[in-house]
Amino acid sequence: MNNDYFMREALKQAQIAYSIGEVPVGAVVEYKNEIIAYGYNKRETEKNALYHAEIMAIDNACKVLHGWRLWQCKLYVTLEPCPMCAGAIINARIPEVVFGCSDLKNGSCGSVINLFDLQYNHKPTVTGGVLENECSEILSDFFKNLRKKS
Amino acid sequence: MNNDYFMREALKQAQIAYSIGEVPVGAVVEYKNEIIAYGYNKRETEKNALYHAEIMAIDNACKVLHGWRLWQCKLYVTLEPCPMCAGAIINARIPEVVFGCSDLKNGSCGSVINLFDLQYNHKPTVTGGVLENECSEILSDFFKNLRKKS
Repeated sequence: MNNDYFMREALKQAQIAYSIGEVPVGAVVEYKNEIIAYGYNKRETEKNALYHAEIMAIDNACKVLHGWRLWQCKLYVTLEPCPMCAGAIINARIPEVVFGCSDLKNGSCGSVINLFDLQYNHKPTVTGGVLENECSEILSDFFKNLRKKS
Repeated sequence: MNNDYFMREALKQAQIAYSIGEVPVGAVVEYKNEIIAYGYNKRETEKNALYHAEIMAIDNACKVLHGWRLWQCKLYVTLEPCPMCAGAIINARIPEVVFGCSDLKNGSCGSVINLFDLQYNHKPTVTGGVLENECSEILSDFFKNLRKKS
């Protein structure tokens, strides 16, 4: 299975977020070539600032693996991680991150800053632009519909 | 009530972490001059990379206030926030952060970087050094005891 496969699974998570009126961002955690944890944005539904897709997926992965060091895992997320999520990736010792489209306002893996380049004790590698168009289109479609409704 | 009062309450949370063998960091969230949420580090106990004191306190505060925008809250934490927690503070729109001692390795409110100075859509103000000695001593005492045991 390759990056595209896992990103399509992350996109399915983004679709769940879309269906409940959340900004459509989805994530999956891969371990030994299998998906062990899923997450989608549910900030509005749960009224909680922490409930980004990556946080939900990392939380689930720690529970599945019964440990906080996800050093054999790879995280796939449709949108470039914000500083909180990039920091969570560092804290969880995730070695590799793949994202879909960039986030010029909050992205912290290259856009506003690349936190993985700084002097923290863990420096994940990062690949952006995987299924970039699909990951970007679901977001622009969501916001277009939102404007129509308001 | 002043910064010292709330930091002493955060220190009590750090003491709880200490008592269960966790790196002693504690946090409280203040709202309208009262503490509405508490948190202490429980990364090892819960085997979860996300469970820093600030994350626990912000999670609780969102639940108490039934909303993700903590724009009337102030966060007190004994140790300078890491990138994940500084990002969570930005996401939760917390306007003001007070910390005890600096964290030269992970601190992201001035030590490694100040995330609140970057071009995100929210820039909390930050005050460090409140009860700095007490906040630092509980950590050095913890690590000294840990070395004795090992």
